[in-house]
Amino acid sequence: MKNLNKLKKTGQNLTKLLNAIELLYWDQETKMPKNGVEGRAEQIAYLSEILHEKSTEVKLGKIIDNLITEEDKYSYSDKAFIKKFHRDYSMAKKLPGELISNLAKETSLAQSVWVEAKKANNFSLFAPKLNIIVDLLKEKADRLGYVSHPYDALLDEYEPFMKSESIKKIFDKLQTGLSEIVKKIKSSEQIDTEFLKQKYSIAKQDKFGRQVIKDMGFPMDSGRLDVSAHPFTITLGSKDVRLTTRYSEDALFSGLFSNIHEAGHGLYELGFSKEIQGNILATGTSLGIHESQSRMWENQIGRSYGFWQHYYPKLKSIFPNELKNVELDGFYRAINKVSPSLIRVEADEVTYNLHIILRFNLELDLMSGKLKVNDLPEAWNEKMENYLGIRPESDGEGVLQDVHWSSGLIGYFPTYSLGNIYGVQFYNKMKNDIVNIEKNISRGNFEEILSWLRTNIHSYGSVYSAEELCKKITGETLNPEYFLNYIDYKYKKIYNY
Amino acid sequence: MKNLNKLKKTGQNLTKLLNAIELLYWDQETKMPKNGVEGRAEQIAYLSEILHEKSTEVKLGKIIDNLITEEDKYSYSDKAFIKKFHRDYSMAKKLPGELISNLAKETSLAQSVWVEAKKANNFSLFAPKLNIIVDLLKEKADRLGYVSHPYDALLDEYEPFMKSESIKKIFDKLQTGLSEIVKKIKSSEQIDTEFLKQKYSIAKQDKFGRQVIKDMGFPMDSGRLDVSAHPFTITLGSKDVRLTTRYSEDALFSGLFSNIHEAGHGLYELGFSKEIQGNILATGTSLGIHESQSRMWENQIGRSYGFWQHYYPKLKSIFPNELKNVELDGFYRAINKVSPSLIRVEADEVTYNLHIILRFNLELDLMSGKLKVNDLPEAWNEKMENYLGIRPESDGEGVLQDVHWSSGLIGYFPTYSLGNIYGVQFYNKMKNDIVNIEKNISRGNFEEILSWLRTNIHSYGSVYSAEELCKKITGETLNPEYFLNYIDYKYKKIYNY
Repeated sequence: MKNLNKLKKTGQNLTKLLNAIELLYWDQETKMPKNGVEGRAEQIAYLSEILHEKSTEVKLGKIIDNLITEEDKYSYSDKAFIKKFHRDYSMAKKLPGELISNLAKETSLAQSVWVEAKKANNFSLFAPKLNIIVDLLKEKADRLGYVSHPYDALLDEYEPFMKSESIKKIFDKLQTGLSEIVKKIKSSEQIDTEFLKQKYSIAKQDKFGRQVIKDMGFPMDSGRLDVSAHPFTITLGSKDVRLTTRYSEDALFSGLFSNIHEAGHGLYELGFSKEIQGNILATGTSLGIHESQSRMWENQIGRSYGFWQHYYPKLKSIFPNELKNVELDGFYRAINKVSPSLIRVEADEVTYNLHIILRFNLELDLMSGKLKVNDLPEAWNEKMENYLGIRPESDGEGVLQDVHWSSGLIGYFPTYSLGNIYGVQFYNKMKNDIVNIEKNISRGNFEEILSWLRTNIHSYGSVYSAEELCKKITGETLNPEYFLNYIDYKYKKIYNY
Repeated sequence: MKNLNKLKKTGQNLTKLLNAIELLYWDQETKMPKNGVEGRAEQIAYLSEILHEKSTEVKLGKIIDNLITEEDKYSYSDKAFIKKFHRDYSMAKKLPGELISNLAKETSLAQSVWVEAKKANNFSLFAPKLNIIVDLLKEKADRLGYVSHPYDALLDEYEPFMKSESIKKIFDKLQTGLSEIVKKIKSSEQIDTEFLKQKYSIAKQDKFGRQVIKDMGFPMDSGRLDVSAHPFTITLGSKDVRLTTRYSEDALFSGLFSNIHEAGHGLYELGFSKEIQGNILATGTSLGIHESQSRMWENQIGRSYGFWQHYYPKLKSIFPNELKNVELDGFYRAINKVSPSLIRVEADEVTYNLHIILRFNLELDLMSGKLKVNDLPEAWNEKMENYLGIRPESDGEGVLQDVHWSSGLIGYFPTYSLGNIYGVQFYNKMKNDIVNIEKNISRGNFEEILSWLRTNIHSYGSVYSAEELCKKITGETLNPEYFLNYIDYKYKKIYNY
């Protein structure tokens, strides 16, 4: 037990250090005065250096090795704890400090170059930087090791144990199914969203948004909601989880669904069982599972008819003039409008995954070397035409639109779609378990839902892998059929196809 | 040069770590959700542990030792840098980790006990905790070492190189002089402040306060102003200095003068020369010098007649009803009302120092053992009667009023009064150097003042000790005559004695 206690203590300390780094980041994005930026980057870099140093200490490795040999002695969650530590330690050890700081430096430099290239609508300005990043990521993949595809090594950081081959199979099915549905929707009567072209007061949006996340069960004495350029959720302590959102007078839905989405993430982070809180298992078991929580709240619940039976009268009383001529049915159709568009973050529930599949396929080929960085724009545009039937007129609304690649985040994109698929598969099971779920939602009562999520998902943190969790809950592994059925059922009604 | 560069790098890293700890603290006091408190305390404790560890590394000691032997080779400010590192390192090395964590633990526990005792108006509830703290501080003093009085060892942390004997002489003069002035004021006609007994909108106070600190030259792109229970200034980076204040509808002056006071601290922290920024010399050279900056802005400038010639019309236009019947002269007299009172933080410019002298004398006797903790309330009350002619009716408005002792901050109080004295002595010199100073102030133009402070004080950070700085600026060491003359001149006019 002595070694296990030592390891637990170390895990707590690493978590505290990570929390401090997260606070430096949160503050930077929400509160920091403009001129603090340079100093802040250096503070984050130095604390990250200490974290790496403390995570790879030789004596820590010895403790882990000892525990691994005797892991059968321990409870299931302690075993999971030891295994996760072993995994994290081995990965950290494989990456030399120089590679990590090179990646940090190059991606930091690439940020402003990407911003400039995007402004100038010119991918060739960014290509040299992306070439450097891809090379560094290839080195990273080689050092981490993989069996069949270098992509797997990168993917593993965001979606542990998942392989690109499995994703490929799932995504191929998804693409076929979604393309058919998109075609049907395209030839149906289109939805009118004229009422969105008005100014919606930000203060009112905020008031409404705060009420919704409060109703969802997000506790403001253990969290906050602030505004940042891009919405995110961040954990600064077991009882301090912060959401950010963005509002625009011109985009009523954007802030609204960001709030619900981020609160979905936040409830996961606040739901870990006491046993694992404040240590390394107190984290989403994969980004896909994390995203299943945000997407389920945002889409299956937040874009459902029942949800707005409860909330639309409230929204209408806040915006009586703006929504005067819009009835619940029209509003419901508007929040679910499907329309193939160029920009991922503006995409609807149906076409969204096609954006992801496109990026995933490009990333696979980039990492295998089949696709050269310089050929990306053309490959992008071709695929856009193929998958969505539209073609970007410039790099800015095409290959340059997302921040991920300039940040070195290859392997991250697929987790968004995995989240969508996991989300529906879990929701399906939950619907069976909670008989009154639709009535509850239509009354703004989310207690049973949150309780189900806590019991079946949140409390475990990383004790179970994503695959284990999925089997445990639904009796099978990840299956895109649930998602396709859900989409078809919902949109057939909306579009009457 | 190689060793010096290494030391500079280390100093930068320690500063980054300190900045991160300060952010954890700032966030706790201003933004953190309630339930974050436990986790935050642990994060701060762990990062402080790392800071101590990194500040006392054996290899760091060797670098410093090498540099000390060859310090004549270096520039004045590099020499000061090496000396300060040597001083900090030696002090840190003298204190065993156990004593530090004991002090941290005991003062942390004492906090809530003090709060309870204060609520219950019962010193005996707090006495056992204070006994433990005093014993630990005696041990700390012994370990740090001193020549003539254990108090000097503690004082040295806040007011480097200053000795209690010198303070005693200064404070005795001050006490005699102030007591006489207080007597004269007491027998003069008293000032009417009836207009303060109204509700002053906090939003309006904030708007006005922000304008004032902007005019002072505090740059909001390198800082912030937030609200906290107790006002403070904190540095999170060379270009990120944050002020906090507190507003109350019932206390117009409290927020107003807090803003000016804290901005005075903030301007010091933002004024260090480029050469020393981001390293260990970029800090106030002593708390007394730091306080001289806040007090000068608050009192010599902010409570001057000229200042309100400019600002009173503005304040009146913001509170037209509340200030309808109050003319500039009446307002000026109100902000300078003198009245012996029980609570230090509510005291005026004249009686304030008597509160400090009282605490200083009690602390001296506590540390020498002449005074027992249990006898503190009686000693306090006697001195209050002696110095200010009033006697607390309960421990809550007497010996229990301040947070300092429960926080282990013995040796800290005198720096407040040193700040008052330094402030006036500096201001006197500045008045000679800036011919138009009064005209400038009466126009809300503080450019020359800030520029003088930057050139003569701020830019140096800790390059010069407080005594060196005082001599450099004013040609003599700290002299309370300037303060007494200033007070007498100002209040004679106001009270017509």
